[in-house]
Amino acid sequence: MRWTDYDSATCSVARTVELIGDRWTMLVLRDLFNGVRRFDELAGHLGVARDLLTRRLTALTEAGIVERQPYQEPGRRTRYEYRLTDAGYELRPVLLALAQWGDKHLAGQDGPPTAVEHKNCGATVHLSMFCDDGHQIDDGHELRMLPLPAARLVS
Amino acid sequence: MRWTDYDSATCSVARTVELIGDRWTMLVLRDLFNGVRRFDELAGHLGVARDLLTRRLTALTEAGIVERQPYQEPGRRTRYEYRLTDAGYELRPVLLALAQWGDKHLAGQDGPPTAVEHKNCGATVHLSMFCDDGHQIDDGHELRMLPLPAARLVS
Repeated sequence: MRWTDYDSATCSVARTVELIGDRWTMLVLRDLFNGVRRFDELAGHLGVARDLLTRRLTALTEAGIVERQPYQEPGRRTRYEYRLTDAGYELRPVLLALAQWGDKHLAGQDGPPTAVEHKNCGATVHLSMFCDDGHQIDDGHELRMLPLPAARLVS
Repeated sequence: MRWTDYDSATCSVARTVELIGDRWTMLVLRDLFNGVRRFDELAGHLGVARDLLTRRLTALTEAGIVERQPYQEPGRRTRYEYRLTDAGYELRPVLLALAQWGDKHLAGQDGPPTAVEHKNCGATVHLSMFCDDGHQIDDGHELRMLPLPAARLVS
């Protein structure tokens, strides 16, 4: 069997990008990770059309990545803010991997525009790949994605 | 200064998703990582319209993530195959992070449909977050993205 004998959509990458594989969605997640929670703040900072932001937040909520919580300021009607769920917080490595690549490959002469730090100690954070036998893997060539019994053959 | 005082687009996540923050692009990358290189094979496996695939591959080539190499089968005209560049291979953690989240959160009753293994030893591969002070970080709440001097204020 070859990789192409298996259904493209029955793959953990395909299933995840079905939910978050969209530029605006990634930026919404980034801002949520950075503590931006209110619809107006998200719309203003991202410069995204309000209807598009609504659709993205609705999809993230339905996917269990984001939850909507009501809040009310004195004398105003109830509004909603958005927070990452526990499952949403587990997307951190996706954002960090994107940031790490951009830091290295897309920085200008002034260096990277952003850093990711460990809140507790202030040190810079990076991602590393390890296998369960304890080898650290620095080269993407050393990895292989395999179909498991739950994969489907192309029909 | 707050995160929202800084220009959303001048951020390493934003710059990277500008290039690859698209569902089809992610799946093209996944298939390239899995050794699928020829246009017809990519189009067939992904089930994507040929003009859309052409646009995605052209954009990835212009971004220096993919390179196009000619090949010729006997008696046929020259065709092209696509390979990840070194910069492209460094996107491995992005794909692995997406796969890891999907394995955990989107698997059905039969378990995850795919695994990522270390070619050299066959063990399963995972991503871990570390800070430069040597702390392993398991909780996305412990991270913070910060603007650096190269970030721009919202004008």
